[in-house]
Amino acid sequence: MVLPRTLRYEDGVLILLDQRALPASAEEVRCASAADVASAIRTMAVRGAPAIGVSAAYGVAVAARQALAHGDDVRDAALEACAALQSARPTAVNLHAALTRMHGVVDGCQPVMTAADLTGALEAEAAAIEAFETQASRAMGVNAARLLPDRARVYVHCNTGALATVERGTALAAVYQLHDEGRLDVVVVGETRPRLQGARLTAYELSAAGVPHVLVVDSLAATLMLQQALDAVLVGADRVAANGDVANKVGTYSLAVACTHHSVPLYVVAPSTSIDMTCETGADVTIEERSDDEVTAVGATRVAPRGTRVLNPAFDITPASMVTALITERGIVAPVTEASLAAHLAGIS
Amino acid sequence: MVLPRTLRYEDGVLILLDQRALPASAEEVRCASAADVASAIRTMAVRGAPAIGVSAAYGVAVAARQALAHGDDVRDAALEACAALQSARPTAVNLHAALTRMHGVVDGCQPVMTAADLTGALEAEAAAIEAFETQASRAMGVNAARLLPDRARVYVHCNTGALATVERGTALAAVYQLHDEGRLDVVVVGETRPRLQGARLTAYELSAAGVPHVLVVDSLAATLMLQQALDAVLVGADRVAANGDVANKVGTYSLAVACTHHSVPLYVVAPSTSIDMTCETGADVTIEERSDDEVTAVGATRVAPRGTRVLNPAFDITPASMVTALITERGIVAPVTEASLAAHLAGIS
Repeated sequence: MVLPRTLRYEDGVLILLDQRALPASAEEVRCASAADVASAIRTMAVRGAPAIGVSAAYGVAVAARQALAHGDDVRDAALEACAALQSARPTAVNLHAALTRMHGVVDGCQPVMTAADLTGALEAEAAAIEAFETQASRAMGVNAARLLPDRARVYVHCNTGALATVERGTALAAVYQLHDEGRLDVVVVGETRPRLQGARLTAYELSAAGVPHVLVVDSLAATLMLQQALDAVLVGADRVAANGDVANKVGTYSLAVACTHHSVPLYVVAPSTSIDMTCETGADVTIEERSDDEVTAVGATRVAPRGTRVLNPAFDITPASMVTALITERGIVAPVTEASLAAHLAGIS
Repeated sequence: MVLPRTLRYEDGVLILLDQRALPASAEEVRCASAADVASAIRTMAVRGAPAIGVSAAYGVAVAARQALAHGDDVRDAALEACAALQSARPTAVNLHAALTRMHGVVDGCQPVMTAADLTGALEAEAAAIEAFETQASRAMGVNAARLLPDRARVYVHCNTGALATVERGTALAAVYQLHDEGRLDVVVVGETRPRLQGARLTAYELSAAGVPHVLVVDSLAATLMLQQALDAVLVGADRVAANGDVANKVGTYSLAVACTHHSVPLYVVAPSTSIDMTCETGADVTIEERSDDEVTAVGATRVAPRGTRVLNPAFDITPASMVTALITERGIVAPVTEASLAAHLAGIS
């Protein structure tokens, strides 16, 4: 199975596959400063909660390495990088969690530590975050695939695959696992307006991996459920609140409503690091409002009159009660409640 | 209120506002043969069930007028035109109904009728169909507006306005009526993938008419209902089956599911001619499957890899039980059942 590689860190530079140019061309973005990385995250050259977290971590490493090369203060550069990257995108918890870890490395370093050693420690921490996501991805795929029937017909939203992470993805990792096991019938890919991550990215990586798929507009999902053409809907998460409410790509709640109406399971697949126990409910999650242009134009084509007022939240909130199960690298949480999440994180579920 | 004019018949030529070029430019398509009209319908230069019906009727008139000018047999030309136009688009009943009326004019003409008189009779019949739709549009707007609260916040799908008809539209006629009465707060416009009729056409005509509106991706509708930001969803219909099932633009069923879940009324606004008592249920409606390109490209921008398999039905079916009321030019049908529809058509509802 050939999967695209979202990012790699080489000689103090973070190299990203530019997801804005896909599927037309596979271009790279070279980030040689924390500002470059923040810009890449903001403009969605890199996206997907886990990939954003890993990129941000490497963004701090890039800043440290550059400071070291120029004889600047590595500690100051790392802390400035953390601050600059923090606000790149507000909704996904992974960005915040990764930067907290990187900040912790700076805070924890001994005064006698050399600039070179601190730089090395920051690079090692970013690599550890990447390694965690890699392992988590495989485990999530295995865990989620267990819940699905043979000859499974699943629906996926947005891009939750290799391009959203550093390995096989979250929800899409389950699809790859099913395919490996010879248990996948077809994966239906919702195009995911407005950014079309389903059409542009998921169809691209499924095609590269040789996994049978069919693309549909988002609004067809409910009809497919009515026709009993779907066994489950698999989505990722940008943040899971303490009560189990899920913040994820806009359109997820609409799918959840259709799943509830048709008794189709809705599985949320995300690393345990996406669970934010400091965030009480979905109402406490900051929902990023993005530019009108994402809705009013596609490429060079304007699809709505100039000046049209647009409401363009990038995410929505799905109540915990509508989530059939949350699947992490640790296992399966069902039903999803504050108690079951706490137990899961404590390792006793 | 300034509304765009979808079509006009002048000197044996049907002139259409080319809806494929909107909102970027307002171009005209001149149809000087029935084949021209069939092509305009097929390629969606003109669309919207009522506008398709009126266009098809004028398509027969165009053929007759051209035959008369060239000394060809008007009767033969008209019947050939009926046949050529019949298959232009399969789902909307209006096309079929309009052609049945035009065919009836040919069948009913006396053998002694001159070619010029038959041509005139066909032109008069097309004009009568247009006049019916014009009157029906106003009446539908008045009838549907009665069901809506003051300061109404309504959601509309696809384009059901002036551009879909020859006057104010079907569902959008209610919005214009509310606006006239000073009772409209805002109309939320679903962009309506894949052809983006909401973004391209509805936003265009609402803007021209000065009606406050906000554009959203289709998958946001459910979240707006959860937030209690919508008082009703208004849609049109391409065909209403005898049992009340509604065939309409893809995405309608998804809205119906969300309406049911959130107890938001779903109003279907369509002329009584959209009710097809010969079609038992929604399962008997032919659903047009359109080209993959509608999903995989927007203008010159390819949004999915070449060769991606696509499922692209242009319409879906909403069960009668999920329709709060059907509003026609004659009045209001609720609940929508075979009996209430039959009574409505018999004029006793």
